[in-house]
Amino acid sequence: MTRPCELDAVEARRLIGQKKLSPVELLESCIQQIEAVDPHVNALVVKAFDRARKEAAAAESAVMRGDLLPPLHGLPVGVKDLSDTEGIVSAYGSLLYRDHIPAKDEHVVAAVRRAGGIVIGKTNSPEFGAGGNTNNKLYGPTRNPFDLEKTCGGSSGGSGVVLATNMMPLATGSDTGGSLRLPAAFNGVVAYRPSPGIVPFDRRSQAFSTYQSQGPMARTVADAALLLSAMAERNTVDPMAYPLDPQQFQALPEVDLSSLRIVVSEDLGIAPVARAVRAAFQDRVKRFSSLFGDVEHKDPDFRDALDVFWYLRGVYMLAKHEAVFETYNDDVNPNVRSNVAAALKMDARKVGWAAREQYRLMRDFHHLMADFDVLICPAVTVTPFPFAELYPREIDGAPMENYVHWAALTSSLTVTGNPVVAIPCGVDEYGTPFGIQIVGKLHRDREVLAIAQAIESAFRTDVALSRPVPELAI
Amino acid sequence: MTRPCELDAVEARRLIGQKKLSPVELLESCIQQIEAVDPHVNALVVKAFDRARKEAAAAESAVMRGDLLPPLHGLPVGVKDLSDTEGIVSAYGSLLYRDHIPAKDEHVVAAVRRAGGIVIGKTNSPEFGAGGNTNNKLYGPTRNPFDLEKTCGGSSGGSGVVLATNMMPLATGSDTGGSLRLPAAFNGVVAYRPSPGIVPFDRRSQAFSTYQSQGPMARTVADAALLLSAMAERNTVDPMAYPLDPQQFQALPEVDLSSLRIVVSEDLGIAPVARAVRAAFQDRVKRFSSLFGDVEHKDPDFRDALDVFWYLRGVYMLAKHEAVFETYNDDVNPNVRSNVAAALKMDARKVGWAAREQYRLMRDFHHLMADFDVLICPAVTVTPFPFAELYPREIDGAPMENYVHWAALTSSLTVTGNPVVAIPCGVDEYGTPFGIQIVGKLHRDREVLAIAQAIESAFRTDVALSRPVPELAI
Repeated sequence: MTRPCELDAVEARRLIGQKKLSPVELLESCIQQIEAVDPHVNALVVKAFDRARKEAAAAESAVMRGDLLPPLHGLPVGVKDLSDTEGIVSAYGSLLYRDHIPAKDEHVVAAVRRAGGIVIGKTNSPEFGAGGNTNNKLYGPTRNPFDLEKTCGGSSGGSGVVLATNMMPLATGSDTGGSLRLPAAFNGVVAYRPSPGIVPFDRRSQAFSTYQSQGPMARTVADAALLLSAMAERNTVDPMAYPLDPQQFQALPEVDLSSLRIVVSEDLGIAPVARAVRAAFQDRVKRFSSLFGDVEHKDPDFRDALDVFWYLRGVYMLAKHEAVFETYNDDVNPNVRSNVAAALKMDARKVGWAAREQYRLMRDFHHLMADFDVLICPAVTVTPFPFAELYPREIDGAPMENYVHWAALTSSLTVTGNPVVAIPCGVDEYGTPFGIQIVGKLHRDREVLAIAQAIESAFRTDVALSRPVPELAI
Repeated sequence: MTRPCELDAVEARRLIGQKKLSPVELLESCIQQIEAVDPHVNALVVKAFDRARKEAAAAESAVMRGDLLPPLHGLPVGVKDLSDTEGIVSAYGSLLYRDHIPAKDEHVVAAVRRAGGIVIGKTNSPEFGAGGNTNNKLYGPTRNPFDLEKTCGGSSGGSGVVLATNMMPLATGSDTGGSLRLPAAFNGVVAYRPSPGIVPFDRRSQAFSTYQSQGPMARTVADAALLLSAMAERNTVDPMAYPLDPQQFQALPEVDLSSLRIVVSEDLGIAPVARAVRAAFQDRVKRFSSLFGDVEHKDPDFRDALDVFWYLRGVYMLAKHEAVFETYNDDVNPNVRSNVAAALKMDARKVGWAAREQYRLMRDFHHLMADFDVLICPAVTVTPFPFAELYPREIDGAPMENYVHWAALTSSLTVTGNPVVAIPCGVDEYGTPFGIQIVGKLHRDREVLAIAQAIESAFRTDVALSRPVPELAI
């Protein structure tokens, strides 16, 4: 029998609306699962069960009264620890903020709560979100539920793990160079990195950037789109947030895959993709190619993308950390310290170059994508590495240039800013999840989500392509 | 009797649709006016009369056939020389590009032509658009039609002058630190600087910025909005151009001024506003205050805005010029050379600081504007200065820090990116036009245009507030 905590969000919400599932029952099932599983994986590092229980009881009453119910009514949601949550510790994974209890919710949290979501706790992240391995000195490592010695990815690693293990149906994440997509891939769940401006962010470090992206994570594309419809609410200050109707994400249109033109790329022409990942991707492409109208193999011209990513990341890191950098001692995330220190040595000429090249990359990718509906590539260059390693120092013997080099498949797409759905696609030769990125056209968010949903649905009938579930989840 | 060249665009288009005015007749009237007036002011520096005549004849035929007519059908449009126009010299005001004839129109030009606009020629600009005085070594100075010894402002100075003198009803412009708004003010015409993303730009120097703004210029707000509806067409590559319906600008809603809350600011708290400008603004505020429901005097906290503008301008100038800077000899615009040279000495720390502060300025201004419908302030700190001066070296005895300091009223609003309508508001004590900025909320472009239109309409009945017309125009 399916326990409530195993239900997808769309299904759970439907049952709540039909009075077949109580928000209290759903929450208690999630709490039970958290208490059983989280000690093994350490993903939900702050629990807010008391308040969640009060809110679930109120949500149940609203159902019984016959109130008009908002889209996330009664659904438990995990919030990444990088987000400010009113009344709940928001440490950003840092010893420096271990006692920080915000006076107000940041925009996405408030929006999720206004939409009826119940914040059940905070999910783990590397300190200040810097890095693709979820581990920090405050809360310790979050482990991969498929292999407890391996990393769950990051920086939204906690969110990836609570979803994979059925602790809750929805969680928020954020992404600079891959922080939504890497943990989605390593844990066999779905993440969505929207076009810039879709999800408003009221704690930006700089006004305009493709770096500070917030997005939904879930076990299905429909669930991610549902959460997105709440996160995309407009009523806050974000210069990138343009007028749009967030309800457009609540029901995605049907897509006929056989009418689609797909471009596939193994390494985007520039990523240091490991042999095992190449093998898995080639196998998957063989399996899914017949679904589509046309599949072409082609790499974008991303030659400068990693340098552009690194220099613009330098500006971003300075905007975010420079004013308080002097207070950062040796305990602070070495990724942050090395990144800021490198950025402090940069001159503006490099920034100007990167700003210009970013547009060139966007323009060229726009022209490539004009002939296709989506691009499909792997989400990560490597299989999950041991959680004790900060990041992979080499891939198949080739050394990495810095702590984000191994994330080239995701960081290069951060530079272009295109919307990306990361979906699971079976397991690799080590038995850990394999994930792909489905890349859409800029600002065509509903379109790429609809396509991803159709692909996910087609993959469901083939065990080699469908979402893997860790034993811990059951 | 009103000559066709004196008609507003909306009125001319209406008459064309009713077969009461032929596009040929309109064009010939404009050409006649250009030939009579332009020798005095030097505003339309490239003439494209042959092609325009062919297009006007074709436009006339389309009317006579009863074709469905696009919104700008048969209207002559001046294009700023910074824009690429297929088959027409596009020199960017530079000796280096004196023979540059583009193979294709850039986006706004193509969009205007698809909407039925007829490109009648190129309007003068300082070389590469750098500076608020329209003068360059290729085409020479454009003169203020109200006082031929004075500057017409810039960088869209040619566009300002062709409109003020009835050479044509519409012209395009662009704005980094005030290049739409300064010449609108100095020539007594209307300009609109849209929110980032409203008008797509396919020749960007960097992917994300509030600097490279293109917008419409005209003699009325309705005309500017009509041209905007064409310029805002979506079919090109600009990462800032989000989905919207450009037709929304073709008919602006009515606004009841007595229901509006207005904030007025004489100097935005930071601008070196000349005594004469302060006096004119105070006089205007006294005259128009009774129109509104509520008028409060308040300055935004723009303390850091000019430094932020200068540092981000450095990045923009590097992105645009650095790759070819070595080829710039002493003949090249000294504003460009000094700006790039200063930017080359900048470190990334300043850029990071400016990126962070830009968001803070936007956020604080957003909160200030929450209580008001629009902010009104002067458009320029000074009355038009002699055209032979590159820029005002001092204002009432206070020296300027650099070539954009005197444009502080406009450049600070470039940092926040808010939409701004510049409209004329009588003349100053020297008899040259006085202009104000009507500043709206970010991404509420239709709203601020509608408010500006209502204000313009109310001003029409008071000669001290209405649009001045130079003798040369008649």
